Amino acid sequence: MPSYTAPVKDLQFVLHEVLKASTSDITGYSELEPEFTAAVLEEAGKLCSDVLAPLNAVGDKEGCALENGVVRVPTGFKDAFDQVRAGGWTGLDMPEDYGGQNMPYLLGTAVGELFSGANQAFTMYQGLTHGAASAILAHGTEAQKNTYLPKMVSCEWTGTMNLTEPHCGTDLGLMRTKAEPQADGSFKLTGQKIFISSGEHEMADNIIHLVLAKIPGGPDGIKGVSLFIVPKFIVNEDGTPGARNGVSCGALEEKMGIHGNATCVMNYDAATGYLLGTEHKGMRAMFTMMNEARIGVGMQGLAQAEAAYQNAVIYAKDRLQGRDVTGVKNPDGPADPLIVHPDVRRMLMDQKSFIEGARAFILWGSSLIDAAHREGDKDADGLISLMTPVVKGFLTDVGYDMTVQAQQIYGGHGYIEEWGMSQFTRDARIAMIYEGANGVQALDLVGRKLAQDGGKHVMAFFEMVKSFCAEQKDVAGMEPFVAPLKTASKDLQAAGMFFMQNGMKNPNAALAGSTDFMHMMGHVCLGLMWARMARASLDALASSPADAAFYETKLATGRYYMARRLPATALHLTRIQSGADSVMALGEDQF
Amino acid sequence: MPSYTAPVKDLQFVLHEVLKASTSDITGYSELEPEFTAAVLEEAGKLCSDVLAPLNAVGDKEGCALENGVVRVPTGFKDAFDQVRAGGWTGLDMPEDYGGQNMPYLLGTAVGELFSGANQAFTMYQGLTHGAASAILAHGTEAQKNTYLPKMVSCEWTGTMNLTEPHCGTDLGLMRTKAEPQADGSFKLTGQKIFISSGEHEMADNIIHLVLAKIPGGPDGIKGVSLFIVPKFIVNEDGTPGARNGVSCGALEEKMGIHGNATCVMNYDAATGYLLGTEHKGMRAMFTMMNEARIGVGMQGLAQAEAAYQNAVIYAKDRLQGRDVTGVKNPDGPADPLIVHPDVRRMLMDQKSFIEGARAFILWGSSLIDAAHREGDKDADGLISLMTPVVKGFLTDVGYDMTVQAQQIYGGHGYIEEWGMSQFTRDARIAMIYEGANGVQALDLVGRKLAQDGGKHVMAFFEMVKSFCAEQKDVAGMEPFVAPLKTASKDLQAAGMFFMQNGMKNPNAALAGSTDFMHMMGHVCLGLMWARMARASLDALASSPADAAFYETKLATGRYYMARRLPATALHLTRIQSGADSVMALGEDQF
Repeated sequence: MPSYTAPVKDLQFVLHEVLKASTSDITGYSELEPEFTAAVLEEAGKLCSDVLAPLNAVGDKEGCALENGVVRVPTGFKDAFDQVRAGGWTGLDMPEDYGGQNMPYLLGTAVGELFSGANQAFTMYQGLTHGAASAILAHGTEAQKNTYLPKMVSCEWTGTMNLTEPHCGTDLGLMRTKAEPQADGSFKLTGQKIFISSGEHEMADNIIHLVLAKIPGGPDGIKGVSLFIVPKFIVNEDGTPGARNGVSCGALEEKMGIHGNATCVMNYDAATGYLLGTEHKGMRAMFTMMNEARIGVGMQGLAQAEAAYQNAVIYAKDRLQGRDVTGVKNPDGPADPLIVHPDVRRMLMDQKSFIEGARAFILWGSSLIDAAHREGDKDADGLISLMTPVVKGFLTDVGYDMTVQAQQIYGGHGYIEEWGMSQFTRDARIAMIYEGANGVQALDLVGRKLAQDGGKHVMAFFEMVKSFCAEQKDVAGMEPFVAPLKTASKDLQAAGMFFMQNGMKNPNAALAGSTDFMHMMGHVCLGLMWARMARASLDALASSPADAAFYETKLATGRYYMARRLPATALHLTRIQSGADSVMALGEDQF
Repeated sequence: MPSYTAPVKDLQFVLHEVLKASTSDITGYSELEPEFTAAVLEEAGKLCSDVLAPLNAVGDKEGCALENGVVRVPTGFKDAFDQVRAGGWTGLDMPEDYGGQNMPYLLGTAVGELFSGANQAFTMYQGLTHGAASAILAHGTEAQKNTYLPKMVSCEWTGTMNLTEPHCGTDLGLMRTKAEPQADGSFKLTGQKIFISSGEHEMADNIIHLVLAKIPGGPDGIKGVSLFIVPKFIVNEDGTPGARNGVSCGALEEKMGIHGNATCVMNYDAATGYLLGTEHKGMRAMFTMMNEARIGVGMQGLAQAEAAYQNAVIYAKDRLQGRDVTGVKNPDGPADPLIVHPDVRRMLMDQKSFIEGARAFILWGSSLIDAAHREGDKDADGLISLMTPVVKGFLTDVGYDMTVQAQQIYGGHGYIEEWGMSQFTRDARIAMIYEGANGVQALDLVGRKLAQDGGKHVMAFFEMVKSFCAEQKDVAGMEPFVAPLKTASKDLQAAGMFFMQNGMKNPNAALAGSTDFMHMMGHVCLGLMWARMARASLDALASSPADAAFYETKLATGRYYMARRLPATALHLTRIQSGADSVMALGEDQF
């Protein structure tokens, strides 16, 4: 069975040596002293290694079961959820007013990676709750906040998001669920929602569903969609769960992975709901939840890759097979370990260099979220808005590929469920799909975010890369980072230029290159992160630290990324510049 | 549930308009008249669509079960196997002397794609039998051939190949299974083999295991391995199955996919075996089976991609979601079909252009096998020997990616088992692993095949590309094919040159680029195939055929491959030329 060890040192490196979190001006960051974050991460890591990771395979094997309307979660999940709640982990970055610990989102993300890596299906119960609570926090009335947030922050009650219906996923304007206004100001919701993660289970005293629905008589399409709070049990005046509401789980989906999470068909039958935010502005409110969820999903891509990688490394060192062509490495054994073979190294380096770059990327993105939310920094807000589809789409596409590579290192054993490597790929697969399939992320990036505020944010990003490179001009050891980063950034700019020159006449010329652009941008972001990590490592090495090997490893891993991964931007550019003609050449009947 | 339709027209196009099979000089090819092959493919296609494809999901869901030593296959498999046998499909390309139809391997491959596409797990029962029969045909005594082949050609008896042991897969020199010589010339085999596909089941009257084992006192390592025939039931003098042999299934593996095929732990307990071929030359005999199996596995990559693609096309035309940005396409419906969206097109074109190129590649490769076996053509033999790892590694790596893309088009429904798209990816995943993991294929290509016979075969391939390009010099419409093919071929030559210049000093400099080289070579092969298909299409169009749209579609699909897929060679070259330093930079303890 796979094991999981929290990558605390790597997280600490990014938090303190790259992002220099505790000396930042962002409100609350001064609390993030290295000793403090280390203690938090160690403690979370212990829970993840000892409690959550061992339940990962259990959840996969047992799955959830629907019995007379009640959803049974896998053995051990309830106890583990109690431990997570008791540890106060669910409210880490939530306001103190509602029982949270008011820590920055940055720390929440760092801890979140550990939970996701140890057990993605389990962690979704609290993850969805966090998202739903954020939406109530942003859009709820005082009364709504007081009613729901304390219980949701502690995860005594959990939350869900209800968007998809059988005939509509991406295109929510086609939604049919109705919300009829009642005399008392509440609504009665009727309809069916599908793919509702954590939709029903017995681990919480109540489940707070956030549900998109249409109020009859409102505008057509997406402009007539409103968001509602629909509790499983209507909350009594005294705040306790009361009468059962008209919402129930009709079925559980049988899925490729994340078996430990209950994916429900939810039936709303004149269920009582309360408007959250403004009538017909439901999408805006839902996007509060969705943007957060997209960062969280990007993190899942990274987290599954990390968990799979850790086990691939163990196997590659342990499994004896063949001999090093440059000379026997294990003369006393019957063969050398797999890790001596260059192609196995290539796979491990692909994984390692992606994971560490992705970790820096997502933590940097989280610091932008804190700057936006805690300081009202509009530039940071614009930048993370631009980056959100990249975090989600790129990290989950590549994260999935990395779990497949980790599985590959196991050879035949990788295909056998007992070894657990298949689960990493099956669980990671969903992250490319939910919270907006990755094609939709690419569309969001190219069709919307690039041009947002007159293209200001992408220009700011290019400027950031340029000025970082300029600052490294005379820094010894930075050249293997700066030169490739400049090239990749130029490729990205050329792609943006192609879109500008061709996209106005023919939107398809841009959209046919959207996924390539998203990947290019992901590569440039990881290239920038590696360059920043390299600089931090060189700075650290200048003071002859005790753990010089740690920084040397960072530099070598970064050089691999720059030499072998980052040059993918050129291929993406070639594809983008080939335009839409070959993509759109066929009539529908020619497929 | 997914459907499957045999791509007869596409197969016919390659057989007759690209390879011009029936006018070839290869013995037996004159029988391959278009009407004849069409009839064969239609008939096979009917069986595949009506019988095998509907059992694909059944096999996935039910899997196999071991009950008191007996393996139960999924519902319907036995009946279907009876139909396959009754149709004479199992001996299509086997010698008439043993009840086969003596058709070229080329036709066997074309038909094989249909079977694999419709139901991979099912088709493995006959596929392994075919491989085992081929090994007996090549290395068996007359008595062995007469005893086993008639029953194996008809699949009354099935076959297996037994290589892997718990501690050794790739490195078979570590093998522990022993074969003790007996006074009567037979052997007693004792040991355990794992991952034995079709190892035990009740669909056949006997199972003929081909087992690698070591005769005590023989050379160490791989040079002391011999191959044995170990029947489940010892065959009586009259050719009927007799006493049960000391071989049994100890357990079934729970796998990620191909659930319908029984993957067995096989225990040999003083089981009677008969030497096949020469003592201590077991690997040579096994490679007869393995090389064929590798082509067959490459075909699985293509076949699963085709099956997944067919369903993705249906879904993309059917599912209404969003509007075409260039103007509404389905004004009477609530939304436009997915297929209007450029990023969905991109995914479908990636799949289509890969599949059709791969099909031409594998059929061309099969014609080389026929030329080698039927005509003793040494050049053809050398070329297919070079290409075998490319067929296996490239087609299964990319084939897998294509099933993932097809699944992606379904959005959330792609993740739900009921829709069947997950099964295509889970089944396709094994093809990257078995019959030599793809990293081993790359090693075989770069470490062995490139330099075989003084590099003669790869030079012949380059010459083939070059002369084909030269022949197209004045052919209108070929330019979008010739120019990219030349560029890609130059990239491949540059990579080969890099290996020559650096690999002698440091073998890792070549091996660190082995997978990149395998993919490059795959791309160049598919590029050549597309150029040949383009030329055939232009020739056909010159005579104003009734189905001009078919040829126009081919040309457009090929142009997509040349513009968007083939340029990947440049990225692979960049990686290769970066050498082994960044790949091998870390010490083992730095991972």
